[in-house]
Amino acid sequence: MLNNQSLLELKTLEHLLKCMKIIGDDTIQRTQLTHRIELVKTFQVKKGMKVLEIGCGQGDTTVVLADAVGETGQIVAIDIASPEYGAPITLGEAAETISQSPLGQRIDFHFATDFLQMAFDEKFDVIVLSHCSWYFESIELLKNYLQKIKQVADRICFAEWDIDYTLEPQRAHFCAANIALLYTAFTENDGNIQNLFHKTQIKELMHSEGFLITLEQTVDASYLQDGLWEIDYSNYLLNVFPEVPTKIQSLIHSYAYLMNEQAKPPLSLNSFVLCADL
Amino acid sequence: MLNNQSLLELKTLEHLLKCMKIIGDDTIQRTQLTHRIELVKTFQVKKGMKVLEIGCGQGDTTVVLADAVGETGQIVAIDIASPEYGAPITLGEAAETISQSPLGQRIDFHFATDFLQMAFDEKFDVIVLSHCSWYFESIELLKNYLQKIKQVADRICFAEWDIDYTLEPQRAHFCAANIALLYTAFTENDGNIQNLFHKTQIKELMHSEGFLITLEQTVDASYLQDGLWEIDYSNYLLNVFPEVPTKIQSLIHSYAYLMNEQAKPPLSLNSFVLCADL
Repeated sequence: MLNNQSLLELKTLEHLLKCMKIIGDDTIQRTQLTHRIELVKTFQVKKGMKVLEIGCGQGDTTVVLADAVGETGQIVAIDIASPEYGAPITLGEAAETISQSPLGQRIDFHFATDFLQMAFDEKFDVIVLSHCSWYFESIELLKNYLQKIKQVADRICFAEWDIDYTLEPQRAHFCAANIALLYTAFTENDGNIQNLFHKTQIKELMHSEGFLITLEQTVDASYLQDGLWEIDYSNYLLNVFPEVPTKIQSLIHSYAYLMNEQAKPPLSLNSFVLCADL
Repeated sequence: MLNNQSLLELKTLEHLLKCMKIIGDDTIQRTQLTHRIELVKTFQVKKGMKVLEIGCGQGDTTVVLADAVGETGQIVAIDIASPEYGAPITLGEAAETISQSPLGQRIDFHFATDFLQMAFDEKFDVIVLSHCSWYFESIELLKNYLQKIKQVADRICFAEWDIDYTLEPQRAHFCAANIALLYTAFTENDGNIQNLFHKTQIKELMHSEGFLITLEQTVDASYLQDGLWEIDYSNYLLNVFPEVPTKIQSLIHSYAYLMNEQAKPPLSLNSFVLCADL
């Protein structure tokens, strides 16, 4: 039997599902939202808060944040990608459905928007970066973000895949991420994964920018579909890899063998959460 | 209490230790030989056999093979490295001590010797490649070796580190090997580790060359010192890395964090053994 907390979360989940654009069956969105609800719980976002979400994508975390801040709160959700980006639903389409939902009036979406170039009139209670750091071109860029974040908020909540995996079946997701990163490194496009930051590297960066880490937590994400998607994508990349130095090619092969020869069905990496105050 | 088999192995170990050049305390050599005895046991080398060992190094496996073939057997042990290579004991020094030991007359050492250029008058019962494949410049070179091996023997026994590790504390060794490989890939020297072949890749290669795999086994090597040595070496490499593309640099950092932030003391990877007949 579900306890009161679980009942509340299930009700939240059903409500959020109704606010989002979903194609076909809602299994995937249900799983993704379940994890985002877990993440936002660790962020301790409260009613009435004003939150800036950087790298909002299709708004999976955004809707959970909007629900958490309640009617008196506000979310500014930005993404550097254009509204046409994303499949099967583009960022623009996803945001439009959310904007027309009961949560819509609490959220301002801004796409093709560079945080570093934005001007802000007032401060936020918290800035959220959830599963977007691997898209960052470099650790220096992340450092620049933190420096600007300090000007507009005293609190940051950060979530990312945890490469320090604890379950053997999560290794294939790690190998897939490595292949995707090497693909990006050798194609000079804006490949999906540009870096695989380790949580200690993020902690060190926050610390060097004067943030005090108040919460560090691993959140189970092993049940998500992302690991399998990433493996499928990396197997596709193996066929379109450009010519790379022999030893790198051999390394990519070793990852591919490790990824595909795994005895157990793959699980997704976990998420790590870091919350820090100035 | 030790059983008869264990007693026999202990006696063998003590005998082999006396045949080798050892500087200071023999703990390291004792551990290494214990593992080599395990490996040679899986190779099923018998009395009277004539064995060619490719990549003999300081002769750790060679002495075990020489003991296994007995007085009527013979080992030809070759290495492409020069007799001056190796520290703290060079290949030449190691081989000299072994040659003067009771096992010496069963072993012919040849250094600075390229297997592909060697001429052979007669066939061997088995060809052994033990923990030398990662030094190979490419999978194509390994393929060339197999093609020549087919001309001089009907049986191959192959051992290598198993990157498909089963214990979490073995991951640091895997990360260290990745760093060493990336160092080699970006320095164009003859770096230590040039490839991290996965066992399935070796199996596929053997199969494509007409070998039938008769034995496949994982041999515990977690207790060896090699993982720690490799981690120390990779931490040293981090300080001498040449300039590499930003994303590769970031990947190396991620490995370094994973390698050094591991909660449990590192263990060495296991060895996998493949024996195959034509």
